Amino acid sequence: MSNYWNSFVQKLDPYVPGEQPKDKKYVKLNTNENPYPPSVNVTAAIKDAANSQLRLYPDPSCDELRKKIAGHFGLEADQVFIGNGSDEVLAFSFMTFFSRENPVAFADITYSFYKVYANLCSLSPKIIPLHDDFTLPVGAFCEPNGGAVIPNPNAPTGRVLPVASIQQILDAHPDRVVIIDEAYIDFGGKSAVPLIKDYPNLLIVRTLSKYSALAGIRVGFALGQKDLINGLNTVKNSFNSYTIDRLALAGAVAAIDDDGYSKKMAQKIMVTREQTIEQLRKMRFHVIPSQANFIFASHTEVNAELIFHALRDRGVLVRYFKQPRISNYLRITIGTDEEMDQLIRALTDILSS
Amino acid sequence: MSNYWNSFVQKLDPYVPGEQPKDKKYVKLNTNENPYPPSVNVTAAIKDAANSQLRLYPDPSCDELRKKIAGHFGLEADQVFIGNGSDEVLAFSFMTFFSRENPVAFADITYSFYKVYANLCSLSPKIIPLHDDFTLPVGAFCEPNGGAVIPNPNAPTGRVLPVASIQQILDAHPDRVVIIDEAYIDFGGKSAVPLIKDYPNLLIVRTLSKYSALAGIRVGFALGQKDLINGLNTVKNSFNSYTIDRLALAGAVAAIDDDGYSKKMAQKIMVTREQTIEQLRKMRFHVIPSQANFIFASHTEVNAELIFHALRDRGVLVRYFKQPRISNYLRITIGTDEEMDQLIRALTDILSS
Repeated sequence: MSNYWNSFVQKLDPYVPGEQPKDKKYVKLNTNENPYPPSVNVTAAIKDAANSQLRLYPDPSCDELRKKIAGHFGLEADQVFIGNGSDEVLAFSFMTFFSRENPVAFADITYSFYKVYANLCSLSPKIIPLHDDFTLPVGAFCEPNGGAVIPNPNAPTGRVLPVASIQQILDAHPDRVVIIDEAYIDFGGKSAVPLIKDYPNLLIVRTLSKYSALAGIRVGFALGQKDLINGLNTVKNSFNSYTIDRLALAGAVAAIDDDGYSKKMAQKIMVTREQTIEQLRKMRFHVIPSQANFIFASHTEVNAELIFHALRDRGVLVRYFKQPRISNYLRITIGTDEEMDQLIRALTDILSS
Repeated sequence: MSNYWNSFVQKLDPYVPGEQPKDKKYVKLNTNENPYPPSVNVTAAIKDAANSQLRLYPDPSCDELRKKIAGHFGLEADQVFIGNGSDEVLAFSFMTFFSRENPVAFADITYSFYKVYANLCSLSPKIIPLHDDFTLPVGAFCEPNGGAVIPNPNAPTGRVLPVASIQQILDAHPDRVVIIDEAYIDFGGKSAVPLIKDYPNLLIVRTLSKYSALAGIRVGFALGQKDLINGLNTVKNSFNSYTIDRLALAGAVAAIDDDGYSKKMAQKIMVTREQTIEQLRKMRFHVIPSQANFIFASHTEVNAELIFHALRDRGVLVRYFKQPRISNYLRITIGTDEEMDQLIRALTDILSS
């Protein structure tokens, strides 16, 4: 707190990201990063872009990348907005589409940055509790609200929402923007992108961080009808003209081009996920069905916070949220088979002691 | 305009950056980029960082880079804030330190993004007219205001403000934040950084875009006492945890390390600037004294807008602002000697026709 900060900043409660440890090497299963490296074409494209042209500003409208993404999804370039990670895209979306008068709706158990954005935009959100099994109460999301934001699959639960349910929510709010945050959609879920042509109120947010293994270059994007994309551009261009650097642009274009590689890695991760779920269930974990690159699990006897610390002591980082309803759960990113073996060994050790 | 945008966005009037042309190759003197490439150590460091680690998030607190910058300026790491270009740093600064109740002050002729930020934050700024010769009316800036933002040297004029005048303004507003935007300070101006230890209300904003020839990687930073830096972190972490990617971080560290190279290039640019000013004056241009990597010039007979278009037709891009008081001026970035020769040849051609 400070006399120099305005009253707005005094009230902010920032997001705390998962730990990026510097003290030693961990099996890092805490921030949903992809365990496999990005495509070699991506690193080659970046090396190629590391040249004297770095003295020049990047293209502020990211034309080449927008065209590439549009082509990939069967959309037009003016239906694509690029941001500095999907977090920036979400921040701009909150600034553009939601208002104090009509509270935006999101679930009680969801990506915890949403309530930080709401705070940043001085909005009082309408918090809708998930069902006991962490499925989304579609009916409650269809009641009047000022728009909604729903991750699909949900984080940190991993539960997927059928496209038909999304359609139901979109139909209920023709005048409000419904954001579907598809950060984890490529690990087995079904995308709502085909609905864009029929729903001017649908905005889909994506990221290259997970599926394309590029958390390190910060590229996210939004897909929607032109009118929504224009709104995002208006806010972005009132904030920062050049949000994506030349290197990230080059890498992102190469990543979209080599989607086949990302798909192959995602399939490996999905196989590992199902094996890990099976192993955890044998160890008496209750595991929520997941279509993401992470799982959400609770042991039937041993406290999650205790396991979290014991895993950390054994060099395995997972994510623990000290929050109502989920304080006995661990969110575990799917790593390589070997990393998951290390997790299982550490858990065996912890549970037998 | 759209039914989906909130009322706030309907009123925004975004910044329009200088053109990044794609149609053909120009002598590009319109966006104050450095004509020389960045240090080879920078491109080498980026190539080196283009590896499998890109799958991992970058360090959200940019510790290594903050330490490096702090060391360079004789400050502590917690006196440094890193942003995605100085534009993002400025946007966060407006969000953190200024309020609707106390209008922030800036000059009528200055970096035109300031009024866009004011609009973004729903502030009504106090606009202070520069003197007729474009010097800053220090007295007017010392009258009560809710803080101030002053580029030094000013853009687009290139005029420098003595550190003693900055101190006078800081003394007048002990309870308000005064931002000195030093984007162009390294081309002959004197920095206000040594004032930081005595002035808790001083925030200095810098960029690697100009002096370090790295407009393409988007790194800016703020220097100030810990309390101001904490405020910026609070807003940044309510917006986007990971604003700087791994590649930009690696490049920025290398750029600070090889400051000697940037200094040498800046000296070359300053020599070229003085030669160009001399030539333009011989051609009957009125040129404002500049301590920046650009000059602001007005021909005594021929209209600036006409020259702007005629230069463009001849493959030379400069910046023209259709604004009161400066609509007969051109802002010309200092390029290489050869680029300035091309400018002079084109101008000779235009003025003789």
